[in-house]
Amino acid sequence: MKSEIIAVGTELLLGQIVNTNAAFLSEQLAGLGIDVYYQTVVGDNPIRLQKSIQLAETRSDLIILCGGLGPTKDDLTKEVIARHLRKALIQNTEGYKKLLAFFETTKRKMTENNLQQSQIIEGGIALPNRTGLALGTFYQTDYHTYLLLPGPPNELQPMFTEQVRPLLKEKFSSEEKIISKVLRFYGIGESQLVTELKELIETQINPTIAPYAKTNEVTLRLTVKTKEAHAGNQALLALEEKVLAKVGEYFYGYGEDNSLVKVVVELLKEKKKTITAAESLTAGAFQAALGDIPGASMVFPGGFITYSLETKADFLNIDRGLLKKHGTVSKECAKQMAVHSRILADTDYGIAFTGVAGPETLENQPAGTVWIAIASRNGEIFSQKYQFTGERFAIRHHAIMQGCDLIRKQLLRKR
Amino acid sequence: MKSEIIAVGTELLLGQIVNTNAAFLSEQLAGLGIDVYYQTVVGDNPIRLQKSIQLAETRSDLIILCGGLGPTKDDLTKEVIARHLRKALIQNTEGYKKLLAFFETTKRKMTENNLQQSQIIEGGIALPNRTGLALGTFYQTDYHTYLLLPGPPNELQPMFTEQVRPLLKEKFSSEEKIISKVLRFYGIGESQLVTELKELIETQINPTIAPYAKTNEVTLRLTVKTKEAHAGNQALLALEEKVLAKVGEYFYGYGEDNSLVKVVVELLKEKKKTITAAESLTAGAFQAALGDIPGASMVFPGGFITYSLETKADFLNIDRGLLKKHGTVSKECAKQMAVHSRILADTDYGIAFTGVAGPETLENQPAGTVWIAIASRNGEIFSQKYQFTGERFAIRHHAIMQGCDLIRKQLLRKR
Repeated sequence: MKSEIIAVGTELLLGQIVNTNAAFLSEQLAGLGIDVYYQTVVGDNPIRLQKSIQLAETRSDLIILCGGLGPTKDDLTKEVIARHLRKALIQNTEGYKKLLAFFETTKRKMTENNLQQSQIIEGGIALPNRTGLALGTFYQTDYHTYLLLPGPPNELQPMFTEQVRPLLKEKFSSEEKIISKVLRFYGIGESQLVTELKELIETQINPTIAPYAKTNEVTLRLTVKTKEAHAGNQALLALEEKVLAKVGEYFYGYGEDNSLVKVVVELLKEKKKTITAAESLTAGAFQAALGDIPGASMVFPGGFITYSLETKADFLNIDRGLLKKHGTVSKECAKQMAVHSRILADTDYGIAFTGVAGPETLENQPAGTVWIAIASRNGEIFSQKYQFTGERFAIRHHAIMQGCDLIRKQLLRKR
Repeated sequence: MKSEIIAVGTELLLGQIVNTNAAFLSEQLAGLGIDVYYQTVVGDNPIRLQKSIQLAETRSDLIILCGGLGPTKDDLTKEVIARHLRKALIQNTEGYKKLLAFFETTKRKMTENNLQQSQIIEGGIALPNRTGLALGTFYQTDYHTYLLLPGPPNELQPMFTEQVRPLLKEKFSSEEKIISKVLRFYGIGESQLVTELKELIETQINPTIAPYAKTNEVTLRLTVKTKEAHAGNQALLALEEKVLAKVGEYFYGYGEDNSLVKVVVELLKEKKKTITAAESLTAGAFQAALGDIPGASMVFPGGFITYSLETKADFLNIDRGLLKKHGTVSKECAKQMAVHSRILADTDYGIAFTGVAGPETLENQPAGTVWIAIASRNGEIFSQKYQFTGERFAIRHHAIMQGCDLIRKQLLRKR
């Protein structure tokens, strides 16, 4: 099964946006055992788009078009492919109802051109759009399969994982299955991980090991091709054991959609513990990350953002003299923030972040200097200084990841 | 001058890395007035790579190949193009010296295959690699220009800006330049914006207008092709005036890297006003967004995250009876949160967010119900209920954008 991906959009050819959809889809297709031989980007130009489709038909079985399903005149993917296939575009009833409901709820004015968002190619399967309005289409001829997906990644990704994946599995199930498993690591860089696992990576053929660096963490994807699910899973398990024997201390969880903060919220729920935070340099980003996880309210009642010396003193009732003596980027400040926030919120843990996000230095300390402290209900206080690198965003993100890892280890009594 | 970009690398087709080079090069080429009509990705496969080059020769003048210049067996770009052009690969003396020096300094062992990194196509111009070892090549025939660039962005980008740009300017100095300008809008959907501007969009040829939908906002890119910068800028200004005459009430700022929260922080600085927040459903994400902007500490001392009823009562000293009577998703709760947080932080404004992020309902109100309130130092209180749609993430993001827009209008006295 050969496939190729055609992304449609002049904004891609002008370099205004990066084609992350191609990477996402390619990774997903690899996981399904479908080969991707080409990725193409073409502008909002009907002739060049049609030529790209014709070329794809000469070399691929599955042709995935993304982008150009919206309501504007530039959005011509559906029209071009329908004309190319000599098919009409028809209104999909469910999609149309959703469109009406959206404009009803938001009290916005629906315009004529919105209607094209709920059209699909006649004879195709409509792919509902959970996070947007433009429908996707799955369409098959005797020779080719065409998949039309929306351009915005937050629409394309759920549509693919929830609807296209099962369809592709059903239509193109080959005897050989690909099973894969993602292991997540924090606290080790990609190159060190690869060095530790060098021998394993080089000698493994099936299953394979693919490392992938993400922001401040690394994942390993173990993939096996197998005709028999049980044997495949056993092979993955055996390989996982070998991997964890070498780098298990950095492992924190499974799965592509997992995250360190998710693991922390789940662990807090499981252990029936609660947490609060006092954030300076991270300015609420740690607590916002907790709030991203549904059900966070069970373990997190709220907390404090104390960006200035004054709010540290006023909100948390920390002695001004102490703050002035030690500075706000200090062990003492971090400890007081953790202890006082925990008392005020009456939680099992209080975590504090204070430091220098940059680009400027603060209190004569360089950007990247971060103190993290954790206070527990039993009176224990942990605190540690870190030196993170990179831009403002990277430093704050690293601080949050490190904070999550400390809480995780606290809950597992590993720290 | 038509160009296309061919990125070479199986890791791209497996989705292991994102093709950021295509975006970078496209943006650079647009700035030079060179049109990019296609971007292609092909794997480390000599036959498919050669076919891609042949296809490019039928439709483009400038063919840019990136990736595959390294020392491994997979790196076959140079070999394929040399064979295709019936040219030899020759050692470049400068590049060879640098290679030797590198292995000398790092005390690493140089292997046979490292030598291919300092080879270029015979008759081509060598492009030194300031941040790596693999040389690029600039090669011209009577019909086509070929540009070979390394794959790692930290090598490709300096090579392009420092060496390729001047070469392209010298060889293909077109009199025509492309100038563009981005306008940003909040509070209007893409389809409504396009409808309002329908006539303008359809009749505009130079400058052009391109709308683009982002999460909860829309941008318009105005682009002019011109031989004379002043005249081009005047044309953009005239078009901008026409656009703003129709949809100016939704316009909030300029630039691709701008954002509503950035505009708010800059306005607060300019007007010398300070702000705090009390966040329930957004759990700190509004304040984290403020903290993303360097210098936010000048206008934002800190604030509160009051996720539970208890923290609303305890942190902000709101009467429990009132919260229980009206519920926490209510006008009264939002107003109290805004007023009390402002008093406690002693700021000019206090903004409060309370509502239902979902997926579950809360206090019998559906996901997406959000109250926002703003308290001012002069005693004014604004509060408003919104009904946002989408997933948890989208609802919280929309609430933050709406909050920013309210503050912006408050500061401009537009609300």
